[in-house]
Amino acid sequence: MKVTVTPGRRLMARLSMGDDLLLALEKLCGELDIRLGEVRAIGAVSRARFGYYHQAQQKYEFLEMGKPLEILSLVGNISLKDGRPMVHAHIVLADGKGATLGGHLAEGTVIFACEAAIQEYQSGEPLVRQLDKDTGLFLWGGGKC
Amino acid sequence: MKVTVTPGRRLMARLSMGDDLLLALEKLCGELDIRLGEVRAIGAVSRARFGYYHQAQQKYEFLEMGKPLEILSLVGNISLKDGRPMVHAHIVLADGKGATLGGHLAEGTVIFACEAAIQEYQSGEPLVRQLDKDTGLFLWGGGKC
Amino acid sequence: MKVTVTPGRRLMARLSMGDDLLLALEKLCGELDIRLGEVRAIGAVSRARFGYYHQAQQKYEFLEMGKPLEILSLVGNISLKDGRPMVHAHIVLADGKGATLGGHLAEGTVIFACEAAIQEYQSGEPLVRQLDKDTGLFLWGGGKC
Repeated sequence: MKVTVTPGRRLMARLSMGDDLLLALEKLCGELDIRLGEVRAIGAVSRARFGYYHQAQQKYEFLEMGKPLEILSLVGNISLKDGRPMVHAHIVLADGKGATLGGHLAEGTVIFACEAAIQEYQSGEPLVRQLDKDTGLFLWGGGKC
Repeated sequence: MKVTVTPGRRLMARLSMGDDLLLALEKLCGELDIRLGEVRAIGAVSRARFGYYHQAQQKYEFLEMGKPLEILSLVGNISLKDGRPMVHAHIVLADGKGATLGGHLAEGTVIFACEAAIQEYQSGEPLVRQLDKDTGLFLWGGGKC
Repeated sequence: MKVTVTPGRRLMARLSMGDDLLLALEKLCGELDIRLGEVRAIGAVSRARFGYYHQAQQKYEFLEMGKPLEILSLVGNISLKDGRPMVHAHIVLADGKGATLGGHLAEGTVIFACEAAIQEYQSGEPLVRQLDKDTGLFLWGGGKC
């Protein structure tokens, strides 16, 4: 499925040191009532937690890294789940040797410094996450593309 | 070389499970006649195939990973090659240990779930890929930047 | 802190083989007087240099890779430091085995081929980098988000 969208508000934000990265993004979207959009960020974290989805078992496994890492990319989107803005983002991180790792951004990732760009969209119909039985994930409903 | 562009249509799309990721993006651009633009996506694949360009030998080598992987980022652009929209995208993937890998997105990468954002652009002159002898790649023509 | 921005000019650019990636982006922004924006790119480099920030010691360590690598993603922003446009970008690179690495893009990264998208923004107040004592980094001033 696909939705044609039109651009709404745009923000550049410096997120606060010590805050949870995913919750900070969702708080920002909630306060501004951004219900659809894209998010991008770079920066660094003091610790990270991210998920890998076991496709056959249909469940997430979460990994934790309790050390400082660069955020090489955070790429994600904003849509509605249970009536509230949900940020779905994936991150690539790097350690002091330049080695990279990452996954599905989860709560438990703590900001050291983070510069984010948020682009709001409007659409004729909202983009709502619903349980998709084929994958076990909450995906945008309304048929296939 | 550089081209000033103006924004055209924007789409948020959920791509279909089981489809080839690169072909699905190119089909979408073809159907909508998107000749210039940017694409971004996150999601997961059930298998992946991506290239590395050997600069000295001027040829691609393709690597295959026959297992489920997260798409941590897909970043790319859309322009014309041989009169048709071509998607040029690079992907970063992650396995169940959070270890990352990736390259130039090639046919043979199968979607498990994928959320894409496509931004069309218009420009005074089309951006057309032509063989560049210095690199052996099909790059945007019209001189250097 | 957060700033609402409005879109300005947009560019798609093919950067020149042999140029320094960071300097080429900053030169382009300088020539066009782009003082605020976002940048994204993919491509390949013939060598790379990137930083990791030691958060406890508040200093960068730079790593060099003297070999050809794909640019899987370059994600960054443009804002002012010392009155001039500064590009802050992070890169993910891949070698011939698909293994990835990366960090904070630094001078010394040489372009083989690079396709960049630059989006200028305007804002009521400029986004200026100032020394932040908590992190030791030059971050956007004006309080926290």
